[in-house]
Amino acid sequence: MKIQRYKHESECSYALGAALTYELVKNMPESAERVFIRSNLAKTAAVAELLELCGNKRIPVAENDKAFNILSPKGNCFVIGVFRKPGLHLEKASHIVLVNPSDAGNLGTILRTAVGFGLDRIAIVRPAVDVFDPKTVRASMGAVFRVHVQYFDSIEAYREAFPENRLYAFMLTASRPIRDVEISEPYSLVFGNEATGLPDVFADFCESVAIPHSNGIDSLNLPVAASIAMYEFTKEYWHQTKYNT
Amino acid sequence: MKIQRYKHESECSYALGAALTYELVKNMPESAERVFIRSNLAKTAAVAELLELCGNKRIPVAENDKAFNILSPKGNCFVIGVFRKPGLHLEKASHIVLVNPSDAGNLGTILRTAVGFGLDRIAIVRPAVDVFDPKTVRASMGAVFRVHVQYFDSIEAYREAFPENRLYAFMLTASRPIRDVEISEPYSLVFGNEATGLPDVFADFCESVAIPHSNGIDSLNLPVAASIAMYEFTKEYWHQTKYNT
Repeated sequence: MKIQRYKHESECSYALGAALTYELVKNMPESAERVFIRSNLAKTAAVAELLELCGNKRIPVAENDKAFNILSPKGNCFVIGVFRKPGLHLEKASHIVLVNPSDAGNLGTILRTAVGFGLDRIAIVRPAVDVFDPKTVRASMGAVFRVHVQYFDSIEAYREAFPENRLYAFMLTASRPIRDVEISEPYSLVFGNEATGLPDVFADFCESVAIPHSNGIDSLNLPVAASIAMYEFTKEYWHQTKYNT
Repeated sequence: MKIQRYKHESECSYALGAALTYELVKNMPESAERVFIRSNLAKTAAVAELLELCGNKRIPVAENDKAFNILSPKGNCFVIGVFRKPGLHLEKASHIVLVNPSDAGNLGTILRTAVGFGLDRIAIVRPAVDVFDPKTVRASMGAVFRVHVQYFDSIEAYREAFPENRLYAFMLTASRPIRDVEISEPYSLVFGNEATGLPDVFADFCESVAIPHSNGIDSLNLPVAASIAMYEFTKEYWHQTKYNT
């Protein structure tokens, strides 16, 4: 198997690190191709658990120091999980819709929060960062192996695919504050690009929503705004699920 | 003036970029020592506005390409604001308390959100990342020039300084969900380290609070948890301030 740095067009990508590889093998074993370990890997309890899981799932494990030189030259990574990128498909449900997200770290953080709040179906409108970029995988802390994602070429293509969803667009110019929103399922929480936000035209076909804040900042950062929205839309469910009240 | 890479013990730090430098000169002009510009700086309207502001505030501006080679070798930065690190002092008020934060990017994001929700008084318990590290400054999008910060050697030292504050500690093991918390001012929202959270002992002298989420993730990331907490504790105020309802 030829090891090469990740490119968007690659068939495979990488989980860099033992914890990420564990999430890969546990949650998406059908896509895990193999696991590389460094020859100086310390055999901790966590590593033993990972290797046992690989054995159970029949995923080959091999020492391959060269792979680490290519994929993680800094030398602070001792396990790499190689996975075939799965096909992307979104089912009918409530969704997170990210329009032109440009930062892999932000996307990963949003995926992690989305799994946390059970909103693990994500639509991404191109141009956009790559959900299987190793940087996204890392920032997601493995949440990328638990989400369902689909890319769309335009917001119109997304709307055609899911006409039943009510769209809530988070915009600085929105007149309705998040506290006054009536939640109607299935819904789509729509967020724009980090630097430019959503174009004004989104207010024509979405309910536009604002998260009120001071004038001391231009905007909340994207993962923060998305997290507050996800929290607010799901908090009754999680409160009742976890606390039976 | 000798230009050198930022170190924690330096008297001065740097705002790397025109937008950050603008925030510096606008919000903390008494600490701004000088502004360096690159010889190939494009004189846009934003740059003209910045230079005019520097003139009004009597802050010297000079071309100095060498400074950029030292401080921003990547070459994508055309303005640097040099500032003397201000003395750190916290007044009585509601606070954000960060215990052992270790990531400059996370700290900057938290500062940005804190300014957004008006909780711009921040206590930081050592060991901790440096609030004036240029990475923190950058991640804060300039919010660092609008906050009041003080470092403490221990949580006990913080509590002695502000005995009137009611402490809410955000912990995975907390029994009380955030929706059921009674807010009593002045309050302190207390958050632990990115990897380890808060030690269990904090539940003995704080009201421990949980943000309920699924078991699909170990925890929310630190800036996300802090943002949700700040949002929840201040949302009535911002709703009424912005929407008069």
